[in-house]
Amino acid sequence: MTAVAAVLVAGSWRASHSNRSFQAENPVTGTKLDDLFPVSGWADCDAALEAATAAAQQLRHTPPEVIARFLELYASELEAHADALLATANVETGLPVSPRLKDVELPRTTTQLRQGAAAAREGSWRQIVIDRKANIRSYYAGLGPVVVFGPNNFPFAFNGVAGGDMVAAVAAGNPVIAKAHPLHPATSRLLAECAYAAMQQSGVPMATVQMLYHLDNEDGLRLVSDPRVAAIAFTGSRKGGLHLKAAAERVGKPIYLEMSSLNPIVLLPGALQEKGAQLATELADSCLAGAGQFCTSPNLILTLAGEDAEQLARAYAEQMEKRPSGTLLSTGGLSGLDANVRALVAAGAEVVTGGKPLDGPRYCYSNTLLRVTGAQFLENAEALQVEAFGNATTLVTAADAAQLIEVLQHLEGNLTACVYSSSDSTDDALYRDVAEVLRTKAGRLLNDKMPTGVALSPAMNHGGPYPATGHPGFTAVGIPRSLLRFAALQCFDNVRPHRLPAELRDDAPHAEIWRQIDGAWVKG
Amino acid sequence: MTAVAAVLVAGSWRASHSNRSFQAENPVTGTKLDDLFPVSGWADCDAALEAATAAAQQLRHTPPEVIARFLELYASELEAHADALLATANVETGLPVSPRLKDVELPRTTTQLRQGAAAAREGSWRQIVIDRKANIRSYYAGLGPVVVFGPNNFPFAFNGVAGGDMVAAVAAGNPVIAKAHPLHPATSRLLAECAYAAMQQSGVPMATVQMLYHLDNEDGLRLVSDPRVAAIAFTGSRKGGLHLKAAAERVGKPIYLEMSSLNPIVLLPGALQEKGAQLATELADSCLAGAGQFCTSPNLILTLAGEDAEQLARAYAEQMEKRPSGTLLSTGGLSGLDANVRALVAAGAEVVTGGKPLDGPRYCYSNTLLRVTGAQFLENAEALQVEAFGNATTLVTAADAAQLIEVLQHLEGNLTACVYSSSDSTDDALYRDVAEVLRTKAGRLLNDKMPTGVALSPAMNHGGPYPATGHPGFTAVGIPRSLLRFAALQCFDNVRPHRLPAELRDDAPHAEIWRQIDGAWVKG
Repeated sequence: MTAVAAVLVAGSWRASHSNRSFQAENPVTGTKLDDLFPVSGWADCDAALEAATAAAQQLRHTPPEVIARFLELYASELEAHADALLATANVETGLPVSPRLKDVELPRTTTQLRQGAAAAREGSWRQIVIDRKANIRSYYAGLGPVVVFGPNNFPFAFNGVAGGDMVAAVAAGNPVIAKAHPLHPATSRLLAECAYAAMQQSGVPMATVQMLYHLDNEDGLRLVSDPRVAAIAFTGSRKGGLHLKAAAERVGKPIYLEMSSLNPIVLLPGALQEKGAQLATELADSCLAGAGQFCTSPNLILTLAGEDAEQLARAYAEQMEKRPSGTLLSTGGLSGLDANVRALVAAGAEVVTGGKPLDGPRYCYSNTLLRVTGAQFLENAEALQVEAFGNATTLVTAADAAQLIEVLQHLEGNLTACVYSSSDSTDDALYRDVAEVLRTKAGRLLNDKMPTGVALSPAMNHGGPYPATGHPGFTAVGIPRSLLRFAALQCFDNVRPHRLPAELRDDAPHAEIWRQIDGAWVKG
Repeated sequence: MTAVAAVLVAGSWRASHSNRSFQAENPVTGTKLDDLFPVSGWADCDAALEAATAAAQQLRHTPPEVIARFLELYASELEAHADALLATANVETGLPVSPRLKDVELPRTTTQLRQGAAAAREGSWRQIVIDRKANIRSYYAGLGPVVVFGPNNFPFAFNGVAGGDMVAAVAAGNPVIAKAHPLHPATSRLLAECAYAAMQQSGVPMATVQMLYHLDNEDGLRLVSDPRVAAIAFTGSRKGGLHLKAAAERVGKPIYLEMSSLNPIVLLPGALQEKGAQLATELADSCLAGAGQFCTSPNLILTLAGEDAEQLARAYAEQMEKRPSGTLLSTGGLSGLDANVRALVAAGAEVVTGGKPLDGPRYCYSNTLLRVTGAQFLENAEALQVEAFGNATTLVTAADAAQLIEVLQHLEGNLTACVYSSSDSTDDALYRDVAEVLRTKAGRLLNDKMPTGVALSPAMNHGGPYPATGHPGFTAVGIPRSLLRFAALQCFDNVRPHRLPAELRDDAPHAEIWRQIDGAWVKG
């Protein structure tokens, strides 16, 4: 019998207090994998919380340089163990090693770690404001233990123990308790082993990063409600997110959620005419990337009805039919996709192509295009916004511009919204009306570009209005801004100079830091 | 029979749809005032929400200069009507015209309006980040109608229709629906008349500021849950705040709350020895200001037990006994204070002086000093943190430094925390331990200074950990940072230059604006 894997708690790999276990599956073969991983109970959570509390206090006195070194060493460890990571993640997720895991996701993960290191070292993320006359000084500082729930769809880059939320929380000076996703526990273990090595080498507290593999819902809710937790990050389903949100907010804890998004694409008449079939190719590239299991995967395409729209529908359906159907992450993902496609059909959508599970053993669904008219959408706007997470897209054809705008007004909050228009100004009048609505419906507005690439830029917003996220003022991607989710505003009023944090003294701690002093931004 | 006052809805003074009314009281005489004001029902809320929705859209296209002019004209209107405002507020609140209303609160209110105007005009509050290489640009922008619930204790400076929350929301580009406090409706009417005149002169949408006087709790909860509302600000009691918080968060709306705070003052041994009686005077000045009805009024004083502490207790009790007891804002405030003092006594506090209502007609309570030992506090820490809002203070004497630290560890979140220490370094070791704990318990840490003056500085934090507020990352005072509560992060990815907001184009809209371009802060 295989031993159950150890959890990473309080700086050591220790047996879970729980005697329950689970196994991951290979979504390509549909078979269970050998390794046993624990479903932790409250005893593991409690031990992690105790260790995190002590680590939070130590981290308040840990120099930024040490935190930065931890993040950089972590990135190097990932690179040193890339082969094992890629192979393991490939088995657990079905995501291709190349071009996805090796060429995109692992470099993204190490880049995030290094950007987090640079932000921690440099310190400008703290938004330091110094009013010398009043002798009042403030900045953002870490707030305490952060619990990160990672999603199923990015085994590295959004993993609770290695992804953007972990980086942001640690770079801001907080310890992290990661709840890995149970679909890729062996990958998470390898990541956590890299974290462990980096903690040892860097000198950060050994409970800076801890990891549990799986929890019952009840313990998850108890965990986010615990007085020792300062903040929570969650990426996953709307249902799970809303339960955690209610539990956390009931006890006054900030929780940052990324829950669901249809990422509407509006194709204006001039763009349809100018680009035609090329748009169908671009759409298929984006909608089918990762079998449509990206947070920013377009689920909704909107056009005006007419011959150009019909041509696009035909060309896009053709693309869907000729391209292979990607592997879905789990049997639950497959049945969920099927159920949601059927819910959309029940709400009035017509199946243009696809719409059914494909024969196994692979977890796989036919590339799916659904259609509704704008009028149908307006009759049933809520039901037609069910997110079919995977390789399914709904095309909405509006009778005219006014109906298109009305449809947009009925959209829920999204991460992204995109408008394609003609290269000249013929679409500009309609663009204005469309963008006016979309700006209130999405965190990121794009032109002439698919939303699935979420650049690691300081200007990025991977956020948006509820229910895409829980708060429209924060982003999960884009260092250093993403750090602010895990920080408290701290103010020092008339505090004696030698007692101030180094960043708030008259003399800057180093030459690179930007601070706002008496109303002007000053470097160093 | 006096007519019932009109509400300010959709740019006009109109009769409330409700037929219910209320009267304010003069807390100095304990008598009802003549004017009748409406208790609005849902019909008034609905009309205000419709108008606010339209105003929000118009404000997105209103130049910052016009918004700035509105705020400045509003300030000038207040100054032009100062005599009426001061007289009316004095009658409704019992707060003295001088030195309070005239010399402190009205200037504070006009200063806030002018700071908000400057922030709107200048635009750096938007935290513009431009990544030219990736062509991604982001900034904070208004998010839609904001409902502001003003408190009882600052008829001008925190009034829903004229105070800091209104200024921040409007300066960020949002319309405001103000729910005035029913203890000072005539004052709120005068303020709203000034707002009305300023709206007319400035050219902002006439529903930029709307005002209702009073609502049933049920309608208040419905209002914050309405899909047309984008965000909410509330200053008031913890009980009311928590109800609104639950209602708003259930539907995913950001709500910013300022609910309660004991504002602990720690007097270290060296300070007690050095300053002695002077500390008693400073404490009495701060604790009795506004009859103790400030958000930052110290409710908790902590020292080490010993002869110096006894001397301070005697000197402070003396101060309390010899100073007049201020007028409380309402009969409800008086009975609440009495009930909470009795709750503290039931939890183990000893009455040193005061502890009872004074004979009327004035709403008045004896200046009250309570005492507990550190051991008693630890036995009953939650019950001994009931906020007795008014002129009551509890002195906690800890047996030794370790117990003092333990008491501090049991504190809930506060707006402020303050440490007095000797002028030399004799208290420094203990200071470190004390400050280490207090930094996690309060939004603003002070040295050698009472917390009741909340300077209008960009470095100010008038916020703090739950339950002092609902989120530790935001401040209600301190422009421009306070504007961020009422903003969404908006990102533009590959958007064509002529379609970008002026602030996000390559060329700055004007020479004064700070923007972060390719990693560096640049002016203009």
